[in-house]
Amino acid sequence: MRASRSAWLFTLGNEVVQGRVINTNASYLGRRLTLLGFDVRGNISLVDDVLLVTEFLKYVMSKRPTLIVTTGGLGPTYDDRTLEAVARAAGLNLVLNEEALTMVREKYSEKGLELTEDRVKMAYLPEGGVPIPNNVGTAPGCWLEVSGTIVVSLPGVPRELEAMWENWVEPRLRKLFPEIHIVEHMFRVIGVPESSVAPIVKKILKAYGNVYVKTHPKGHEIRAPVLDVYVMATSEDIKEAKQTVNEVVERLVSELKGLGGRIEDVSV
Amino acid sequence: MRASRSAWLFTLGNEVVQGRVINTNASYLGRRLTLLGFDVRGNISLVDDVLLVTEFLKYVMSKRPTLIVTTGGLGPTYDDRTLEAVARAAGLNLVLNEEALTMVREKYSEKGLELTEDRVKMAYLPEGGVPIPNNVGTAPGCWLEVSGTIVVSLPGVPRELEAMWENWVEPRLRKLFPEIHIVEHMFRVIGVPESSVAPIVKKILKAYGNVYVKTHPKGHEIRAPVLDVYVMATSEDIKEAKQTVNEVVERLVSELKGLGGRIEDVSV
Repeated sequence: MRASRSAWLFTLGNEVVQGRVINTNASYLGRRLTLLGFDVRGNISLVDDVLLVTEFLKYVMSKRPTLIVTTGGLGPTYDDRTLEAVARAAGLNLVLNEEALTMVREKYSEKGLELTEDRVKMAYLPEGGVPIPNNVGTAPGCWLEVSGTIVVSLPGVPRELEAMWENWVEPRLRKLFPEIHIVEHMFRVIGVPESSVAPIVKKILKAYGNVYVKTHPKGHEIRAPVLDVYVMATSEDIKEAKQTVNEVVERLVSELKGLGGRIEDVSV
Repeated sequence: MRASRSAWLFTLGNEVVQGRVINTNASYLGRRLTLLGFDVRGNISLVDDVLLVTEFLKYVMSKRPTLIVTTGGLGPTYDDRTLEAVARAAGLNLVLNEEALTMVREKYSEKGLELTEDRVKMAYLPEGGVPIPNNVGTAPGCWLEVSGTIVVSLPGVPRELEAMWENWVEPRLRKLFPEIHIVEHMFRVIGVPESSVAPIVKKILKAYGNVYVKTHPKGHEIRAPVLDVYVMATSEDIKEAKQTVNEVVERLVSELKGLGGRIEDVSV
């Protein structure tokens, strides 16, 4: 139902892949993009290996998604090579961007620090890239349009990324894409195993093409079944989406009560 | 240094990709595998789309990694199709596994529940797959060896996955692979910008081929620089790994103090 606005995430860094850090950037961006009406298809976390990152970026770019967002690998260290990977994957040169250089220079000159090679490195963007100001940290992000895909690259430090997303990237996306409404509802059913709910969900999904239902087991399937049932619809018409969700929830609740289920409210 | 024992994760499910749930399975498995001496190359999170999952599994399998671990998509609902994707990607049939069927039947018969189609579905494994008992939930996991790659499929519910990992998968991996030691150390340096630390790290990495160093900015690059410096070495010889890490930490600390940095202990 939202195939025309697809998005992919790349959350880069050994610390994420090797599990020293929990990947909250993925959930932050996955949620923000979903609420903006994007159909997020996947999140690819890779170690800091520029060839591996290039390869996967190229692979995902070949699917011509609407948007790719990368996080991590924009800093001054030897393994910060995300924009090099983006440039390689897009077949573009990595060039010194004057606007980005000004941003970087201003930050270091505050403290009288000179522009070393490792600092200047942060001002290299793929040709045609627009630097995204980083008011919390130092490395600028990058907005690039290539073969119909927007590639947004942001730092990996969550508070830098989140500020840049909220102040710069999301407002720009809102301008470019018409608003899509997403209506969600979640409720809990106690006392019915997921395997007994499964055929009911299947039947309802057959009747409604434009709704998504997912069951999340919270208890024990047989001994103490507890399920959270998530229902979502998206549409440019908010009334339509609300009506669909309400109808589907009513039908589900009625059938689940028929199976002896007890219903409780929970939040998404 | 550990190229011979590579691993990939697939953490599947709309709720993860769309950010309604934080992906703790990825960090749990990433960390466990790293500590077991695996070189985890990436984690791929995808929505519940059996063709998309098949495509990416096939792509990663073609790299012939030592191990692939998938989480999610083993339950009784319409969108639980991970083992179908594994079978397709491996070019195998999905067949009813008698051992898995016994596991599933025993669970439901506890409560006098019959084996419906949606329940039997959980006993279908790729040909040659070994079912992994699930003592916490219902759906068995699957251990499959295909073209030199071990593919382990586990449920997405963290407490099911973790119990199966600790009781069944990890002991089996320990038997199959010789022990590799991983030695880690982390310390904090206050007062030196990451961009000033970068050339020092580069120089030390040139001198030591078998060590990994990563800097994590925690403060503000220019106004209040705080960096966590992570040093790791892996080896079958624990003494060698310890010595390398000690030497590298000593050299780093001495150079950083030379730049006016203050050093503090932090844990990994």
